[in-house]
Amino acid sequence: MTSRAFVSLIGAGPGDPGLLTLKGKEALARADVVLFDYLANPELLRHCPQARTVYVGKKGFSEYISQEQITALLIATAQENGGQRVARLKGGDVYVFGRGGEEAEACAAAGVAFEVVPGISSAIAAPAYAGIPVTHREVARSFAVLTGNVKEGDAHYERLSGIDTLVLLMGVKNLDTIAAELIAAGRAPETPAATIQWGTTPEQRTVTGTLATIADEVRRAGLEAPAVTVVGEVVRLREKLRWFDVAHGG
Amino acid sequence: MTSRAFVSLIGAGPGDPGLLTLKGKEALARADVVLFDYLANPELLRHCPQARTVYVGKKGFSEYISQEQITALLIATAQENGGQRVARLKGGDVYVFGRGGEEAEACAAAGVAFEVVPGISSAIAAPAYAGIPVTHREVARSFAVLTGNVKEGDAHYERLSGIDTLVLLMGVKNLDTIAAELIAAGRAPETPAATIQWGTTPEQRTVTGTLATIADEVRRAGLEAPAVTVVGEVVRLREKLRWFDVAHGG
Repeated sequence: MTSRAFVSLIGAGPGDPGLLTLKGKEALARADVVLFDYLANPELLRHCPQARTVYVGKKGFSEYISQEQITALLIATAQENGGQRVARLKGGDVYVFGRGGEEAEACAAAGVAFEVVPGISSAIAAPAYAGIPVTHREVARSFAVLTGNVKEGDAHYERLSGIDTLVLLMGVKNLDTIAAELIAAGRAPETPAATIQWGTTPEQRTVTGTLATIADEVRRAGLEAPAVTVVGEVVRLREKLRWFDVAHGG
Repeated sequence: MTSRAFVSLIGAGPGDPGLLTLKGKEALARADVVLFDYLANPELLRHCPQARTVYVGKKGFSEYISQEQITALLIATAQENGGQRVARLKGGDVYVFGRGGEEAEACAAAGVAFEVVPGISSAIAAPAYAGIPVTHREVARSFAVLTGNVKEGDAHYERLSGIDTLVLLMGVKNLDTIAAELIAAGRAPETPAATIQWGTTPEQRTVTGTLATIADEVRRAGLEAPAVTVVGEVVRLREKLRWFDVAHGG
């Protein structure tokens, strides 16, 4: 008998529950069990009233749960009861720093069928809600997405000067170091920069400055994780293109 | 009296109609008029039976329609009849080489209220459907999205060697030149590469090779636009992580 075991690795999107995909919603509605993250908006669980839901976020757990434990739980859950449909709901996109690749590898290794349901990444959507297009004609013909969670000197900022727009996920607490390293690597101190906290949600807050000032501005405003930082000329467009925080304050 | 004029700039996603967002679907259902692109899947128009639909793709028009004409039509349509709700449905994401920034600027300049509904970008989703995560632990800690539509020598490939995964949108016909320039800029000829045509649709086809061979492989297989090319070690993961084309052939 073929096992019913099936895993949907679902990107929950950046926060706004309206940014879940139709396919993500359908996979939630078909799930026996839903394993969900800290950054997946819990409002999304209304799409799966039939499912058992398990919080596996790495934040807020009384005891720390490691990625290895999450992955093991994912496979064990899929294989329980002769095979179950598991929806694995991850913040943002599955494959943009979501460690979805490791979970997919575990499915493949265990012989558990899986699918990937991409999600809207905060790397693109948080700037968009703040009025900042990551690409723009004559202004930015490329963008890169990096993690701010790197050891000092490991980021090779001197080797990405050909990229017009930089988007940094995570690491808002390292912004001093990151900005200093980008300037040391040759990016102009007056390059516009913006940090967006809780992008796409009613709590969205945006702070702007330059590479030289952004870390101070962010500290002054008290912005913390989760936050996205954008560096590049596109940040100037916010003045004209902001729409979400005009309607919602902040 | 306040005008009802309102523009939703909606990312239609990469092709799979299930990758539209819930918010995109709702905006379509509320629209008076829908202006849609070549790369926006026409199946999505079933979400707006009430609306007048207008094709404004730059491909397949008997007469060429320029971006300036599209933008002018967008504003004029929004302002007609004392103000209308217009859904502007664009392939992929609005702000990832979608020229959405120009359309948003036109709204702002004309005083037409607008919103941005991000879409799933083919830059991330086409690789994901082909079994290629753009980031992966210990393998890729950064990715960049570039257009392949650049004049020779304009791409500054020598200044993005710090990026682990490169995603090239468009320009599949220039792949020879792009690959040669990337090698000349110092990227190893044996770097794995994959080109995905019509990613996330039943017509999805994927060809793999190395930076040295991918242009030949793509030519041999007859892949053409629309296609996404991924360059980097993550391409090797496809062997283990492919799922969509296992289920759908290709």
